[in-house]
This record gives sequence, structure tokens and C-alpha cells, in this order.
Amino acid sequence: MANRKPLAQRAAEGILDYIRTNDMKPGDRLPTEQELTQLLEVGRGTVREAVQSLASRNILEVRQGAGTFLSDKNGIMEDPLGLSLEPESQKMALDMMDVRLMIEPEIAFKAALHATPEQVQALLDQCSRVEKLIKANKPYREEDALFHKLIGECTGNLVVSRLVPLVTSSVVLNVDVTRDRYRDQTVICHRQVAQAVARHDPETARRAMIMHLHILRSGISDDMTTPLND
Amino acid sequence: MANRKPLAQRAAEGILDYIRTNDMKPGDRLPTEQELTQLLEVGRGTVREAVQSLASRNILEVRQGAGTFLSDKNGIMEDPLGLSLEPESQKMALDMMDVRLMIEPEIAFKAALHATPEQVQALLDQCSRVEKLIKANKPYREEDALFHKLIGECTGNLVVSRLVPLVTSSVVLNVDVTRDRYRDQTVICHRQVAQAVARHDPETARRAMIMHLHILRSGISDDMTTPLND
Repeated sequence: MANRKPLAQRAAEGILDYIRTNDMKPGDRLPTEQELTQLLEVGRGTVREAVQSLASRNILEVRQGAGTFLSDKNGIMEDPLGLSLEPESQKMALDMMDVRLMIEPEIAFKAALHATPEQVQALLDQCSRVEKLIKANKPYREEDALFHKLIGECTGNLVVSRLVPLVTSSVVLNVDVTRDRYRDQTVICHRQVAQAVARHDPETARRAMIMHLHILRSGISDDMTTPLND
Repeated sequence: MANRKPLAQRAAEGILDYIRTNDMKPGDRLPTEQELTQLLEVGRGTVREAVQSLASRNILEVRQGAGTFLSDKNGIMEDPLGLSLEPESQKMALDMMDVRLMIEPEIAFKAALHATPEQVQALLDQCSRVEKLIKANKPYREEDALFHKLIGECTGNLVVSRLVPLVTSSVVLNVDVTRDRYRDQTVICHRQVAQAVARHDPETARRAMIMHLHILRSGISDDMTTPLND
């Protein structure tokens, strides 16, 4: 068993190579176990071990009876920063917001520079989707995170689009930063960001994002008094 | 088996709670399986399953015969951004550098504001360590990544210190950005950052980090001609 491991690791690398070479996308189906056995020139047990290890890394998804697919999770782990090791706290929520303030205004700037027409359309659609949920007083955290993810994708930066979900859909957001009085502000700021990206106005996109995040931040901290606190 | 899973998940949550409540650090030893069975009021199999799942998330480390410990990996997964799904390329290396340019100058700024005397000492020591390796013409990538991680820790921001390793010790750095002609520049810039942090001079820390990263970036891209390219 001990000397099987490097073999399974090499098989996993082989599968990753296959995914990259064939430019496979989430949801695409992998060759069958038997085909992989031939492609990688290893035994069935090794293929199974390799597939298991890639599934545990959220790269593959094994659907019983249907086959093995590229996971929608895109290889991104649940809680990849290991934040669940830290106690949930106001400090953690503020720390996360400070990280978002470092990266998301620059991301909005780059999004306005590089967004394709299709990306702009997807962003505007998502903006409307969040808006509707907020106006209907429904939970909107997930759709909100997707809005921010789409802005990341508009940058065309491969790392950014994978980084944004880490700081928006994070466990620490269980701290409630979406109290009622911030909902209207979120509608306004989202719309400003989306429209600035749509008309390729990077400065405004950045400013709107800074404003959005600072309003959210002021909902966690008492260190600034804003008109919203009246 | 299907309805065992929520139980094991709750047991895993219980272990996380225990870790947080007792403020455990990497390397600390967890209670024995039997103690956990009593603490969590579940069966041995459930405890084992919970420990397994936390080990696969790099939160725990099971050392045969010695017990279960909090992992040094701090819950951070190998390749947490799923970048191994993307082909290695110049674009990926530039994208990563652009993300570093978004966050690391601000991190250097905050490090200079908040570093404790102990953190400053650790940073200066690590600076010397990298310097020695570079001067001896030895591989220094890992110690270099640790230097940048220590700057992240100087900020006191819990998210930052977990985020920096993701962008410095990443798989994409297999693209060689540490060619000879950048080694001397790295020595100079690192020293400038470390000294600015040491004297709590945030503006200079930020400028030195911007310079450092732009010099590295110019080693990947041809879009700027610098005196170094002569």
C-alpha cells in the first residue's frame, strides 16, 4: 500500500493533465475508469485511488451510476483558508472586510477595463437578481456573493476569479453584516458598480465598490458614525 | 451509513469547538479517541470518522501511535484556489503577480503600523535567512515565501496571515521568476521592507513592496523595459 501512493499521485497528475489538455469545463464528463486505465497505463485500483483523491480536493465529482465529472466546485475547498479554526468574532468579520477592501476596489477597476459584452450582461442580470431578492425581503447572501464573483470574472484574471469566492462566501460572513438598514444601500452601490463596469469607467467602479464595502464595514464596527446609524 | 454522516459532521464541529475554546495551536495534542467519545457523547466510529474528515482538511494530523495533533498546515489545503486545474502559463504567473500587487503593498503598510517587537525581530531574522541563501546561490523560494508570510502576520489581521501563503507559495510559482538578475534586487527590496516595518514607517514599507513586486513582474513580462534588462 505504501508504495502504491506515488503511483496514484502520478495517475492523479495524469488526470489533471488530461483535463487541462482537453480544456475541460465544470460539468464535463471524464473518460470511464476503463478508458483511464488505458490512457494512464495503470491498474484499475490506481485509477480509482487517483479519482478519489481528486474528488476529495473538489476537482472531480463521482456520481454513482452516471460517471465521473469535473466538479462545479472548481477545485476550491470548503473553507480553504481554514477560518473555521478561528472563533467567529467581530474582529474576524472586520479583518475579512479589510481584506475585501484591499482587493475588491481594484478588482472593480480592472473589471471595468476588461469586461466582455457577455460578462457585462451577466453582471447586470445578476445585479437585478440580487435587487429583486432584497426588495422582496428574501435572503440574498448567496446571490450577493455570486454578484461579486462575476465582477472578479470580468477582470479576466484567472487568480482573481478564484480568489473572490474565498472572501465573499466565507464562513465568517455568518456574522450578520446585512442588517436591514444596509439593504437599500447595497441595491444602490451594486447598481453603481455594475453600471460603471458596463460603461467601462474604472474610476467610478472602484469608488462605488469602496463605498459599498465601507458601508458594510460600518455595520460591523462602531468606529465610524454614518448617517445610516441615525 | 447515509444517516451516520450528519452525526460525524456534528462531531467534527464539536472538535472544532473544542479547538477554539481551548485556544489550541498547531502541534498541540487532541484528547484521545476515548476522551473525545465521552466529550462529544458519540460512538468511537463517529469520532474516528470526524477525525478523518478534519485530517483530510489539513486541520488535524494523525500520527500513528503518538496521537492526534493540530496540523501545522493550519487547515490550509494544498492548492486551495484549484490553480492546478489551469495550465501553467506566463498569463497565470502574471495574473498571480497582479493579485500580489493588489494585496501585498497594503499588507506591508499595515504591517508597519501594527507589528509587535517580537514580530519585527522574526521578520529581520527571516530577512537575513533569505539573504544568506541568495548570496550562497542556494534555492530560497520557501524561505522567501515565509518572509512574505511573516509580513502578513505583522498586520495582526487573521485573514491576511492565512491569505498570503496562498499567493506566494502557490503552484504557479513554478514559473521561474527568480532568475539571477533579480536576486540582488530581492535582497535590497526585502531589506527595505523589513527595515521600514521595523521603524513603523508604513509609506516606505508599501513603496518598497511595490518596487519589489514590480521588479519580479518585469521578469515575467516583456511589457516594461527596465535597467535590469540590459
